[in-house]
Amino acid sequence: MPELENGWIKRVSVTPPSIKDNTADADRLERALMAILKTDMVDIDLSVLTDLPEQLRKGNYNLRCILFKDHRKWHLSGISSEDMEKLTGLAVDLGTTTVVLRLIDLSTGLALGERSFINPQISIGPDILTRLHFAEKENGLRELNRLIIEGLNRAIAELCKSCKIGHSDIYLLSVAGNTSMTHLFLGLNPRWIIREPYIPVTNRPGCVSARELGIKANKSAMVFIFPNTGSYFGGDLVAGILYSGLNRGGKTSILVDVGTNAEVVIGNQNWLVACAGAAGPALEGGVTKMGMMAGPGVIDKISVNPETGLFSIHTIEGLPPRGICGSGLIDLAAALFLSGMIDIRGKFVFDACGSRLIEKDGLKHFVVVFAEESFEGFDLTISQADLDSLIRSKAAMYTILETIASYVGISLSDLSTFYVAGTFGSLINPRSAITIGMMPDLPSGAYKSIGNSSLEGASMLLKNQRLIDEIDAIRNSITYIELNVNQDFMNRFSAARFIPHTNISLFSSVN
Amino acid sequence: MPELENGWIKRVSVTPPSIKDNTADADRLERALMAILKTDMVDIDLSVLTDLPEQLRKGNYNLRCILFKDHRKWHLSGISSEDMEKLTGLAVDLGTTTVVLRLIDLSTGLALGERSFINPQISIGPDILTRLHFAEKENGLRELNRLIIEGLNRAIAELCKSCKIGHSDIYLLSVAGNTSMTHLFLGLNPRWIIREPYIPVTNRPGCVSARELGIKANKSAMVFIFPNTGSYFGGDLVAGILYSGLNRGGKTSILVDVGTNAEVVIGNQNWLVACAGAAGPALEGGVTKMGMMAGPGVIDKISVNPETGLFSIHTIEGLPPRGICGSGLIDLAAALFLSGMIDIRGKFVFDACGSRLIEKDGLKHFVVVFAEESFEGFDLTISQADLDSLIRSKAAMYTILETIASYVGISLSDLSTFYVAGTFGSLINPRSAITIGMMPDLPSGAYKSIGNSSLEGASMLLKNQRLIDEIDAIRNSITYIELNVNQDFMNRFSAARFIPHTNISLFSSVN
Repeated sequence: MPELENGWIKRVSVTPPSIKDNTADADRLERALMAILKTDMVDIDLSVLTDLPEQLRKGNYNLRCILFKDHRKWHLSGISSEDMEKLTGLAVDLGTTTVVLRLIDLSTGLALGERSFINPQISIGPDILTRLHFAEKENGLRELNRLIIEGLNRAIAELCKSCKIGHSDIYLLSVAGNTSMTHLFLGLNPRWIIREPYIPVTNRPGCVSARELGIKANKSAMVFIFPNTGSYFGGDLVAGILYSGLNRGGKTSILVDVGTNAEVVIGNQNWLVACAGAAGPALEGGVTKMGMMAGPGVIDKISVNPETGLFSIHTIEGLPPRGICGSGLIDLAAALFLSGMIDIRGKFVFDACGSRLIEKDGLKHFVVVFAEESFEGFDLTISQADLDSLIRSKAAMYTILETIASYVGISLSDLSTFYVAGTFGSLINPRSAITIGMMPDLPSGAYKSIGNSSLEGASMLLKNQRLIDEIDAIRNSITYIELNVNQDFMNRFSAARFIPHTNISLFSSVN
Repeated sequence: MPELENGWIKRVSVTPPSIKDNTADADRLERALMAILKTDMVDIDLSVLTDLPEQLRKGNYNLRCILFKDHRKWHLSGISSEDMEKLTGLAVDLGTTTVVLRLIDLSTGLALGERSFINPQISIGPDILTRLHFAEKENGLRELNRLIIEGLNRAIAELCKSCKIGHSDIYLLSVAGNTSMTHLFLGLNPRWIIREPYIPVTNRPGCVSARELGIKANKSAMVFIFPNTGSYFGGDLVAGILYSGLNRGGKTSILVDVGTNAEVVIGNQNWLVACAGAAGPALEGGVTKMGMMAGPGVIDKISVNPETGLFSIHTIEGLPPRGICGSGLIDLAAALFLSGMIDIRGKFVFDACGSRLIEKDGLKHFVVVFAEESFEGFDLTISQADLDSLIRSKAAMYTILETIASYVGISLSDLSTFYVAGTFGSLINPRSAITIGMMPDLPSGAYKSIGNSSLEGASMLLKNQRLIDEIDAIRNSITYIELNVNQDFMNRFSAARFIPHTNISLFSSVN
């Protein structure tokens, strides 16, 4: 079976030794690899050498070599003489909340299976900052590192079992995470990431031995860790850019990872500019009492019939509603606005809301789902304060977009494609986001939800060796700008606090 | 305190980070090192990165970096911000029988202490071939590897204790051993070393992490393993050449490591030719009944008064004699020949030997020490068979020397210096070796005993970074020739079986 054309497996034929050519096995292989890879150096680990003599002779001096590369050099991550053996790679999205693994057949590029688990570091703290502070306690870093490595090893064992392979069939790992998670994963002290001038230990860990990291894989397996651009722009976003193809576009596009922290990259094949800013937890449904993460029975879509003013509510798996997630909230705000139940300041309009508007704890609440229709038999409501919080978040989001666009001297309306990354991003209805003025008023075809772009980018690398140079090029070409909360920013923010915006001409599609 | 000029410790000043230059610590250090070392790559292990942020800031962005290099690239083996801390290296002569360690202060180049131990693999087999066969049994290789690594770790612990340092103060290890010992030390399968066409797994292991080898040293310590030229010409000899300076000489010289196997290199600054051949165990005192390794009470020197014919016997530490070592045996043969007690064929001359010649088990024996003078109260004797064996060995030795000299087209008498390596070599009296025709008839000043040249070569490397390129150059310039036991060789051997030789003009200094 032929291997993937630009994959990491190379078939190597080595001249058999003879009395006249008694070059050592390793030198012989190294020479062959250098010729094939057109390089002057290939790192061959001792653990590969222990198998080399037998594998070479078993395969009659024909080998399958599994290689990997970083910005420095090529690494030989394993050898195999048998065609029977599955040679696999593991792509890992090292999320702060959720870690996702995908097993890939290195010969065919096909995904063999996937698995995700809640990052066990959550037991230390749900947010990264709590963990980084914990890392400064005695043995704190070691504990955080242990949690993530053990979590990964458990998931690897389960994934291998379900895919009927052994962990020693995993030769390459491609890991994308934010800068802090990358440090905790590598056991590197993150202390200076959160202190001015915000210095990571390393931005380009490159390839590290899986064994050294304590990861259960082949004894020679190498782990490539996606590089960071700095403390606040990590490998997960570099992987996301790779997957979106932003860096290959002739026209300028934008990639947004929406969340508590919004990460934004704008660019094309010639340049990339990035920034990150706090958009607030409201966007993730983390503020309102009825807000929750997406799951069964959670409202993820709401639409309104503008003529009748009647809501149509959709829950995940069609169960009776029990709460609302971020995308549902954005839909709700858009629906409320379109039906005239909130005004352009996001305030409830008494006349329009009618019996749905109630008073609770001295605050106005809007009943989204009445008690008899809800899962737990309580009214599902949203308060004026919840709405205000959502408006602030959407205003922050839009301000960040405007600021970065203005920094690079273009108008948001000039964007060719608007990539939305992340699970949350994949749930957002762009039409609703435009309606409330959270995202720019682009034609609906311009919006592309790209899901877990970090995992996808990490997976891509396992299928195509050429991407390693592209990853390095992405990292090197990113200009990261600090968002200064100056008067200009505040002016933009104030204008964006209206629905959709004070300058309605920016949102001409919104009636 | 300034460091050794060409040593492995480099003082590095790194630009402190700022908001305007928030390059990561590792990238910052890497950049500084690349500039200092004039290289485009420095391998920085994860274990160094774990300490980097604190060490950088503690030393106010000034570091002492301990580096190492192999034929491929530079390695950062450790960092230290404090001048107080001792930075040391360990030179290791990885002998088949005896392992010798020398601790060296990397700042000054001074030796801090030395230690030797019997290679614990001797429990498997005293000779290397037995061990190599044992390595093919189940877990055999692992056991051999365990024995040598644990032996080293015990010796390191003792040496560190006596030198009042911790094992984590050892940053560099420089290890020289023969090809087989090198394989067992690295845990590499030596199976194909002893089978045609005699292929080592690797000839150039380069730098390997001490941690990976299980050696107790600093967690980032690197081990440089001297390269082999092939299965039968190992790193110990490359280290020996380095120490002798054979490869730097304007005139052609020879280096001989005398033992059961004689290893010979001839050459100068332009070329090096090597060979190895069996000289027989007689040279090491391993055949005669009274033969033993050098030790207290062992006869190491014998001279004869040519006029009176009286022997003068010297024992180690002046104790009553209990046996004879190789150098004593050579002296004895020379003394017997000079006093006319043996003829030019090495046969006892009845009339000259007188009462010292006795008959035992149907064989003629010569009493070297009478029972009343010996340690154990028995006659110490040497039989005609013992002498015959010695003659065969010395003839083999001389034939090897003649053959290699003839291969490179020079006469042995043209040699500028004759380096004799090894503990045994350091005991040999060149005058006696010339008398029996074992070594060529050069002026006494031409003979230089260089002791444990493998340990000395390994030690040199720890003091001078420039030698790494020289080691590589030595390895690459060696032409190894197979000694064909053909008619030519047999003719030379036959001539060399006389004392000193059939062609007496080659030994004009011997009366």
